Amino acid sequence: MPSSGRHDNGSLPPSSIPPSLPAVRLRAAPRTSAGARPALSPPLPSAERGLGAHPWRARAAVAAMRRGERRGPGGALGKAALEEQPDGPGPRRSTESEVYDDGTNTFFWRAHTLTVLFILTCALGYVTLLEETPQDTAYNTKRGIVASILVFLCFGVTQAKDGPFSRPHPAYWRFWLCVSVVYELFLIFILFQTVQDGRQFMKYIDPNLGVPLPERDYGGNCLIYDPGNETDPFHNIWDKLDGFVPAHFFGWYLKTLMIRDWWMCMIISVMFEFLEYSLEHQLPNFSECWWDHWIMDVILCNGLGIYCGMKTLSWLSLKTYKWQGLWNIPTYKGKMKRIVFQFTPYSWVKFEWKPASSLRRWLAVCGIIFVFLLAELNTFYLKFVLWMPPEHYLVLLRLVFFVNVGGVAMREIYDFMDDPKFHKKLGQQAWLVAAITATEFLIVVKYDPYTLTLSLPFYITQCWILGIILVLTWTAWRFFIRDITLRYKEIRRQKQEHKYEKDKCLSNGDGHSSILDEQNGNKLRERKL
Amino acid sequence: MPSSGRHDNGSLPPSSIPPSLPAVRLRAAPRTSAGARPALSPPLPSAERGLGAHPWRARAAVAAMRRGERRGPGGALGKAALEEQPDGPGPRRSTESEVYDDGTNTFFWRAHTLTVLFILTCALGYVTLLEETPQDTAYNTKRGIVASILVFLCFGVTQAKDGPFSRPHPAYWRFWLCVSVVYELFLIFILFQTVQDGRQFMKYIDPNLGVPLPERDYGGNCLIYDPGNETDPFHNIWDKLDGFVPAHFFGWYLKTLMIRDWWMCMIISVMFEFLEYSLEHQLPNFSECWWDHWIMDVILCNGLGIYCGMKTLSWLSLKTYKWQGLWNIPTYKGKMKRIVFQFTPYSWVKFEWKPASSLRRWLAVCGIIFVFLLAELNTFYLKFVLWMPPEHYLVLLRLVFFVNVGGVAMREIYDFMDDPKFHKKLGQQAWLVAAITATEFLIVVKYDPYTLTLSLPFYITQCWILGIILVLTWTAWRFFIRDITLRYKEIRRQKQEHKYEKDKCLSNGDGHSSILDEQNGNKLRERKL
Repeated sequence: MPSSGRHDNGSLPPSSIPPSLPAVRLRAAPRTSAGARPALSPPLPSAERGLGAHPWRARAAVAAMRRGERRGPGGALGKAALEEQPDGPGPRRSTESEVYDDGTNTFFWRAHTLTVLFILTCALGYVTLLEETPQDTAYNTKRGIVASILVFLCFGVTQAKDGPFSRPHPAYWRFWLCVSVVYELFLIFILFQTVQDGRQFMKYIDPNLGVPLPERDYGGNCLIYDPGNETDPFHNIWDKLDGFVPAHFFGWYLKTLMIRDWWMCMIISVMFEFLEYSLEHQLPNFSECWWDHWIMDVILCNGLGIYCGMKTLSWLSLKTYKWQGLWNIPTYKGKMKRIVFQFTPYSWVKFEWKPASSLRRWLAVCGIIFVFLLAELNTFYLKFVLWMPPEHYLVLLRLVFFVNVGGVAMREIYDFMDDPKFHKKLGQQAWLVAAITATEFLIVVKYDPYTLTLSLPFYITQCWILGIILVLTWTAWRFFIRDITLRYKEIRRQKQEHKYEKDKCLSNGDGHSSILDEQNGNKLRERKL
Repeated sequence: MPSSGRHDNGSLPPSSIPPSLPAVRLRAAPRTSAGARPALSPPLPSAERGLGAHPWRARAAVAAMRRGERRGPGGALGKAALEEQPDGPGPRRSTESEVYDDGTNTFFWRAHTLTVLFILTCALGYVTLLEETPQDTAYNTKRGIVASILVFLCFGVTQAKDGPFSRPHPAYWRFWLCVSVVYELFLIFILFQTVQDGRQFMKYIDPNLGVPLPERDYGGNCLIYDPGNETDPFHNIWDKLDGFVPAHFFGWYLKTLMIRDWWMCMIISVMFEFLEYSLEHQLPNFSECWWDHWIMDVILCNGLGIYCGMKTLSWLSLKTYKWQGLWNIPTYKGKMKRIVFQFTPYSWVKFEWKPASSLRRWLAVCGIIFVFLLAELNTFYLKFVLWMPPEHYLVLLRLVFFVNVGGVAMREIYDFMDDPKFHKKLGQQAWLVAAITATEFLIVVKYDPYTLTLSLPFYITQCWILGIILVLTWTAWRFFIRDITLRYKEIRRQKQEHKYEKDKCLSNGDGHSSILDEQNGNKLRERKL
């Protein structure tokens, strides 16, 4: 993807899309306060509201187009919604990319509700009426459940609510939303079984499952240079260089694209190694050599993944988002590029988490990091309690699932957090990911309370207590004490200056103290920001 | 409900809501055709687009508010979407009621995504961790399935896509949408079982089910005045006056509210009696006395239901739709009225099906009548093939379900049909109702192909063939032949008039023939409409 960065330098003739001409134009809605009945006044001319090409407005149009019905190629520009402006210029305005869209919408991007319904009915009719029903009840039950899931996916992919993403196709994201629902319901079912039944239930999915995992020897030799081995003294390192190295790298590359913040990625990456240290007495496969933890995992795999992710992020935030219909592009090369770009986002939002800006954002960011780490731990604990071998395809499928839904969920959480109005809905995918993480954790607790309550070693408990105290202290200082001391200092300074001025006034006679007061007020506000 | 018709006569002080002041004000989006890149022109002043209080625009605002996020009571007017105008003044403009809304939005109407998630997690944790899991696998399986359904409902009620209705609460309609999904998946599961297993499966829901229905004697004495019975010669009539009479009446009252058209209701009502005549050799409980069919069902129960329904419809379409926040209403009586009115629609759309206006609408209306009758027949056949006694609560629940989803589905179908753009999505609830009707029919076919293929008696076959020929002939005449003959006649007339004019011109010398031609063209167009 980064190789397509030339796009920014105008590989399309610059005359074809003058960047100052917004293809999606919107006007502001006159705002009326609740309760007051507005008079029939002529709406404000749009020029007063500083208009048109503004990124925030483009975002509104984008959201509207995504939500709105698709149009035929001969139709007019996609439906544009006029969302009301948030109070004052919010932070979103500066972090959202501008989008140009000529609104072309071909066959592939239209809804095919009736077609899907017709094909579905025909398929059901064929399978159930023309094929003979097997007499095996267990097989039929399984088949009935699979058919129900497929019909649900059909419904969901055609009709579910669209989320924030629309490329390569909104149906793709609707599909993953429906998969989330199915997975969550599966987890709920598992949660309500006894431990025995739950583990044996996995046999219905794969007959090889439902048997206890063999004990494995993890620890091992941690010497980087092993003088005992004559032929290859670095054999310990080569041993660790297995398939998990590219998996770690690629995983963190994708996680960076989800989180879109260098600091948060690094904190989660380091925190997870601390968690591995802390929990290796519970799950033996958390125990690794020190250089495996810090050099190979944090610095090499994760660090490189985060670095590449950040490079991609900066490319994505600089890239121009102009969407033309394939038939409106004259050159063959341009058409090919357009097809490839269908797999890049429709528009881009930089995430500015700003955890220190307010207590609410701080708690939200802490919560996100907590849930993120919990989801990572669930991967390992769930395998352990459900007797899944680490190389089983279900484990891989779960990760593929999380990669696909994680990005949507993180964007929805960011939108929820960043919204100036507190009463916005948390997005559906974020809601589901949170519910899934909670359910997975409940399964782990229910299926193996013994392992989970093995007490931490004393020095680890000490470290965690220290860490928690530091975080709490910082929180208290940043959001409570600092404000108070700042305010106290300002008041004292103001008083002093006031006194000084009074003296000056008394000696001089010209009264511009009110102006100075105002300036002080501004200073105070600046510092608080 | 019709008793509240006083509302129209201004039981609220007329000064409180001047009808000419729209609370929801919108401006038109500048239209841009696809492909053409619009120049950065100043948006048109709204006065040019003839604005503000126009019903259609109010509808756009309504739809937007319904779709948009809810605001706090102190916030501004609900989010207003600027939908693009359909090409030219469509029929919707005249059939949609005007709406005034002050945008007040209290606690009850806000999304509570995080609250629901938190309560759900706590409940799951309590049930699965603190209560002891029973050791009974069958019981746990049932419990797991019920828990999955409940979690799905939680998710859906909080997060599913909103439909066209928003009163008394959008969550109510989301709930029924989710119930539709669950019911459809249940039907799919049943469809994939063998006939034996499927019938026995009903035992899991109610242990009394899964046993063959007793043979019943339907026919009986059809004498209205029975001279043989000395004490009560009208006993045959009293026998028929059971619980089904109010059920018929109430059912048709609700069906009229769904269909919103006198003619379509009457056609469906009469057609159903014909179907009962035609199918009484398959299902004996379709056989009734002639006076039961035509006098008690069609005229008394259905007719009265349709009459009351039409009265309610005319009240609903005349009623003023003004929504004030409860705390903005000064009087106690006004507050009570506002609470009661929460259970009436947010706005009203008259349905004008106009089946004869185009071939597409004609086919659509025929299709709707067909699916409607199929759903009615499914009620009886499904009971029959799944061995459900007619008085079982599941039968009643199915009807309650259909009453709740039918209205939404019909509105969505109307919106789909009435939309000038063909590529709009069919609404989710309509999609599901269609899928459910098809699946129910497939179950009936699969479970009892023998009864369903019992050949029709000869005279009934004749009647149906005659009916089908009549409908096809009318279709051919109305949409193909009539156009051709009309056009031919017009052309002949035009030619004659042209000739006459030429003669006149030759004799007179003044050439206003072109004006006459234009007038003829207008006449032709009028006749075609």
